[in-house]
Amino acid sequence: MFDVLIVGGGPAGISAAVYLKRFRLNIVIIMKDYGTLAKTDHIENYYGFVEPITGTQLVENGINQAKRMGISIIEEEVLNIEYFDTFTVKTNKSEYLAKTVLLTTGASRSGLKVKGFNDYVGKGISYCAVCDGFIYRNKRIGVVGAGEFMLEEYEVLKNFTNELTVFTNGVPLSVDIHGATLVSEPITAILGDEQIRQVKTSLASYDVDALFVAIGTPSASDFALRMGAFLKNNDIEVDETFMTNIPGLFAAGDCIGGFYQIAKAVSDGAHASVAINKYLRQKASL
Amino acid sequence: MFDVLIVGGGPAGISAAVYLKRFRLNIVIIMKDYGTLAKTDHIENYYGFVEPITGTQLVENGINQAKRMGISIIEEEVLNIEYFDTFTVKTNKSEYLAKTVLLTTGASRSGLKVKGFNDYVGKGISYCAVCDGFIYRNKRIGVVGAGEFMLEEYEVLKNFTNELTVFTNGVPLSVDIHGATLVSEPITAILGDEQIRQVKTSLASYDVDALFVAIGTPSASDFALRMGAFLKNNDIEVDETFMTNIPGLFAAGDCIGGFYQIAKAVSDGAHASVAINKYLRQKASL
Repeated sequence: MFDVLIVGGGPAGISAAVYLKRFRLNIVIIMKDYGTLAKTDHIENYYGFVEPITGTQLVENGINQAKRMGISIIEEEVLNIEYFDTFTVKTNKSEYLAKTVLLTTGASRSGLKVKGFNDYVGKGISYCAVCDGFIYRNKRIGVVGAGEFMLEEYEVLKNFTNELTVFTNGVPLSVDIHGATLVSEPITAILGDEQIRQVKTSLASYDVDALFVAIGTPSASDFALRMGAFLKNNDIEVDETFMTNIPGLFAAGDCIGGFYQIAKAVSDGAHASVAINKYLRQKASL
Repeated sequence: MFDVLIVGGGPAGISAAVYLKRFRLNIVIIMKDYGTLAKTDHIENYYGFVEPITGTQLVENGINQAKRMGISIIEEEVLNIEYFDTFTVKTNKSEYLAKTVLLTTGASRSGLKVKGFNDYVGKGISYCAVCDGFIYRNKRIGVVGAGEFMLEEYEVLKNFTNELTVFTNGVPLSVDIHGATLVSEPITAILGDEQIRQVKTSLASYDVDALFVAIGTPSASDFALRMGAFLKNNDIEVDETFMTNIPGLFAAGDCIGGFYQIAKAVSDGAHASVAINKYLRQKASL
């Protein structure tokens, strides 16, 4: 059982980790990739670097900084987190238990950049099978995605209907999915009236009553939503100690909104670490 | 006239500067020394550096980062700031005008570590000649300090009394001060009843009605106090835009309190820059 399991190895996650390690807590970082920062190749406004640095280099520095301090980094994809007094974090390879979880997976939640998509979010388009799947019992449900995250949602949705279609949206399927109805061409539009009615692709139109989005890797908001944490717009809502409404579930960095800058994420991580340490000490003394 | 004059070249000041420069504002940094950070020789909890870095190295990195971006850094000691619609910043060598000022000079405000000192702060011990000098008109006033800052306070206090004694507290006098009564041995205690009554040194005791403290370099709190900005304990009080109660006077980093960490100062600076930019744009559009 870890004291703190950090999801995400960017500025907020590593910054928190180096503080938490110095508090002598048993921590681990689980990260999948370098995230949004890797897309930036010219950072010159983060204090302390004379020459501009690439996002990839900065993330690598952070990882090596953490490793040098003896912090474990596991390169797996977190697919689900369950909360029941403690946290069970399920990845594509294993399961981990932790007393607290800190979400620092950045801001991105992937939607579809097609006509009509934004109009039907909440009107048949959902980001959470566990939350909304039962609403569409025995209805025609589509799920968009091509990897582990989609499979996770698919398995949940199978409990509700037999009319389940996977839309890979032109992305090669990276998981085995037996017996599913597959649509592999790109989605071009979402149609409907008050509710979503059709998914239009480059080849055909498909009638649906609901469309679940599980593209790429789950974002912090996705985990939070599944556990019943409050969101504000798409950001995870935290109090002044960076804790969500779920005891022991913390979030920091871009996923809680605000100023999308490295400086802010790093500061968030440092502040969250102090709050987590305090939370664990208080719990231990009960 | 500068758009923004930043006092202090540590993490908060440089972080703000690099953002402000990218907002294409006309800015300048005035700094005296490397501050508190230079006393730290092993920083391993600031994100992005694989190996521990010294405070001196980090401050130098910051200065070179700013210079590389074409930001002017003036190495002078700010002695006073006056506010009258715009700001006049007086240093040991010159005067500068600015539309806004950002204070990022760190937390330190130097008191005396001697018996009785803390008991008489506010009871005859003052940090601001302009604020409190008139209370002690024609009384026996002491002023503690040995440099430019002391001289600045001395000149103000001369207007109120002829019984003025300079206590250099064992520090060699670094300024010319004609006709002053000088006590150069170390102060060992402050004595009094309801109010301060005596300054005790290693050699003698001196009767005083007030003692003004002007040791070393003025801190951000000292400037703020002189301009009528609100303090909270010793920290400068700012709103959510990092602005004090004085329009155009901003503060960030350790001098506004909170978590005394590089990460927090850097984040403060970034946030303050956005607020300053907005403030200037709004003023320009009036």
